[in-house]
Amino acid sequence: MYPNWILQRANLTPNRIGLTFEGKRWTFEEIKEISFERAKQLAALGIEKGSRVAILGENDSNTIFVMYGCMHLQCEMVILNRKLSQSELAYQIDDAQVTNVLVNDNDLALIPENVNFLLFSEIENSGCEPIEISKEWTVDQTVSIMYTSGTTGFPKGVRQTVENHQSNALASVLNIGLSEKDVWLCAVPLFHISGFSILVRSLLYGNEVKLYRKFDSESIAKDIAYGRITHISLVAVMLERILHVLEQHEMKASPSFKLILAGGGPVPIDYLRRAEERGMKVLQTYGMTETSSQTATLPAEDALRKIGSAGKPLFFNQIKILGAEGPYQEGEICIRGPHVTPGYVGRFENKPSTEDGWLHTGDIGYLDEEGYLYVVDRRSDLIISGGENIYPAEVENVLMGHPAVKEAGVCGVEDATWGQVPVAFVVLKQAVSTDEIIDYCHVHLAKYKVPKQVHIVDSLPRNASNKLMRRKLKELLP
Amino acid sequence: MYPNWILQRANLTPNRIGLTFEGKRWTFEEIKEISFERAKQLAALGIEKGSRVAILGENDSNTIFVMYGCMHLQCEMVILNRKLSQSELAYQIDDAQVTNVLVNDNDLALIPENVNFLLFSEIENSGCEPIEISKEWTVDQTVSIMYTSGTTGFPKGVRQTVENHQSNALASVLNIGLSEKDVWLCAVPLFHISGFSILVRSLLYGNEVKLYRKFDSESIAKDIAYGRITHISLVAVMLERILHVLEQHEMKASPSFKLILAGGGPVPIDYLRRAEERGMKVLQTYGMTETSSQTATLPAEDALRKIGSAGKPLFFNQIKILGAEGPYQEGEICIRGPHVTPGYVGRFENKPSTEDGWLHTGDIGYLDEEGYLYVVDRRSDLIISGGENIYPAEVENVLMGHPAVKEAGVCGVEDATWGQVPVAFVVLKQAVSTDEIIDYCHVHLAKYKVPKQVHIVDSLPRNASNKLMRRKLKELLP
Repeated sequence: MYPNWILQRANLTPNRIGLTFEGKRWTFEEIKEISFERAKQLAALGIEKGSRVAILGENDSNTIFVMYGCMHLQCEMVILNRKLSQSELAYQIDDAQVTNVLVNDNDLALIPENVNFLLFSEIENSGCEPIEISKEWTVDQTVSIMYTSGTTGFPKGVRQTVENHQSNALASVLNIGLSEKDVWLCAVPLFHISGFSILVRSLLYGNEVKLYRKFDSESIAKDIAYGRITHISLVAVMLERILHVLEQHEMKASPSFKLILAGGGPVPIDYLRRAEERGMKVLQTYGMTETSSQTATLPAEDALRKIGSAGKPLFFNQIKILGAEGPYQEGEICIRGPHVTPGYVGRFENKPSTEDGWLHTGDIGYLDEEGYLYVVDRRSDLIISGGENIYPAEVENVLMGHPAVKEAGVCGVEDATWGQVPVAFVVLKQAVSTDEIIDYCHVHLAKYKVPKQVHIVDSLPRNASNKLMRRKLKELLP
Repeated sequence: MYPNWILQRANLTPNRIGLTFEGKRWTFEEIKEISFERAKQLAALGIEKGSRVAILGENDSNTIFVMYGCMHLQCEMVILNRKLSQSELAYQIDDAQVTNVLVNDNDLALIPENVNFLLFSEIENSGCEPIEISKEWTVDQTVSIMYTSGTTGFPKGVRQTVENHQSNALASVLNIGLSEKDVWLCAVPLFHISGFSILVRSLLYGNEVKLYRKFDSESIAKDIAYGRITHISLVAVMLERILHVLEQHEMKASPSFKLILAGGGPVPIDYLRRAEERGMKVLQTYGMTETSSQTATLPAEDALRKIGSAGKPLFFNQIKILGAEGPYQEGEICIRGPHVTPGYVGRFENKPSTEDGWLHTGDIGYLDEEGYLYVVDRRSDLIISGGENIYPAEVENVLMGHPAVKEAGVCGVEDATWGQVPVAFVVLKQAVSTDEIIDYCHVHLAKYKVPKQVHIVDSLPRNASNKLMRRKLKELLP
């Protein structure tokens, strides 16, 4: 049994600031009070303790309070990605069999048809049902469910339990340290594990979260320079924009600024050097939805000595390279530890997430002689675009749904701004314009997943067993 | 499953200093190498994986390496108190049914007769058996066993598991923060949980332990003033001596000094004020063997606002006052959390340590309206003398073993140096001098438990059901 994080944090440090957002601030006691109210309102609206609900909301304090209300009710929260298309959202809502979707009023237009939903305003204006809120949570209780795709192209709903989140946050603190004055800036989406884990850490650590509705490089650069924050989670493209502002204004990070946690793919060396010049430590991390955030993190002191490495596993975690007999041998990266998901919901409910306790990531990497991890190739030819994961198989499935498309292959190509962007190659069975194909994709896919170019080809590169060789697709580029 | 702490720490930060002692220093990699060697030597000498062994050694690096060797072998270590008499040690060694006692050569004279033992020098000079050292430990594996007495006067061997130690260390870090530059001075005995928990924290946090063989107020005051350490665990009597030195030399703590963790009974207000003048934060803590160290700790910021309080529970812990319906109502302090022992070994093996998950401490206390714990009366009229626990029933049992003694009652009286010292009252059945009684106690009890005075009385204060009323004993003082 572990304590209800929100309640225990309020018990211990009621008067510390826990959250700031657009000029407003809340102590942990206030966060508890508001989230208690939300829990009671949700109960009054028929949300049952322990039920599964989905949440669709932008980075906003009201999204956090609804989430925390659900956590008091020990609901399994399916946290939906706001960038997805209606059909993608419909798939997840259906697959997870949620009783209700809790929707930020601003996001009303995003929800698919025929879905049972409650607007945040309805919840906030509802009466309260007096319910007892549990002081304790069980270790294996599911807190959140996030969807991620794999080799099949079908998104899988990943369970993230109390133990998963908590052990990750604790392992992280053993790596990066802690002070009660820490302030963690959150401009990454709360619907990604990178954002949600900032909330978890705040509840466990008792530190302030400075929440941004949207990424704003000007304002964030000032936060860093003026000593308003100590920590920030970023992806490479955001780091570059912040660097640009700091360089433009000839500003440096305040001495009280501690670190950047950089996830969602490798950070270019040039950014690391520029960050160092601006007085900022960058900790590159290797994490994923299935591990409730970080598995390995490169300490800042090694950032330039071990360029390209994702560091060592955090304290409770182990990493092995499948089949490797020594350092520098490449193989599939396998992960073990209390932060690894126990499994999936929906159609993959019976698919085990681990073998002998090891999560097989599908990513290819190696360890050097000191045990530092290098990720060579992301799973299933994963494309990482501005920190968002794009699975080629998922995009290919959509392309092949078009009546004119016979075969499709998708790969990532380098992009100065986004790191990578997706590009498609199609074999047609009847004539169609590439614009029409792109329009079709816009209906079925989140915008960031839509191929930036579609190339019509005669055939796709396949191996002897007729399997698509995505890495050879680039050679087809005109 | 959790990682082998010693191994994982060496994997993560091999080159950081983990231990300094009398001018020598060891990195975590060196600590791992030496402790691996000890494990292999112990195996060569017949110590089996998972067996139960006792350890008797002073605060010395070699004691730590033997302990860590045992931990690699996943042995259950009965950590013996060096201050005990031979008969007290014999009781524990017999009760725990250990296969062997591992003894520091300096402590050879302390071990009882007819006990199977291995000297540290024998271990260090032994050959090695090649054995596989487990990378993982199970959550409920017993790391250490420490004896503590209760109402019956019979010491009970308390199991302290991986989960107990680990959750305590993690909850502590959420309370006091962490920096990789932390150095924790250990001058409290390693055979007490106050000392052993410093080792556990060091392995989890990756911080240096500065070990002292003996408490040395002059040298420690300089460590504090010159910025050589950041943390120290103390009992009140040690704090007073350090304060005395600092005051004498008109020295203050270095700005890099962080905190004193003060356990083993309340710290007098005067000491708190003087510590503040010397620039030192004092965090008073309430802990015990059964909770693998801290249960509640008073943050320094509340030290003077909440004088006399032991603070709030640490993050994973809960405290309730049995029978209390609101703040300020006194009752038995009950504790719940992953740091609470699962039970005992030996003759108390079948005695449950908790009821519905709650440890009933026997201590009396109350919570104020903000949830701060105040300990009013220690369990079983516990006497705390210089940080050592003395259970009156245990001393009374020994007194009544003397042929001339019919009845005995023991209580604590105030003492300027030690906080409290034990005093005995006896009813005789035949004539005997008080000196003879004291000599008799010296044979059977650790020195600190021997009554400083023995008073011969006609009868002892008893209640209607003939139960000894120890609190009334003081009224019999001449």
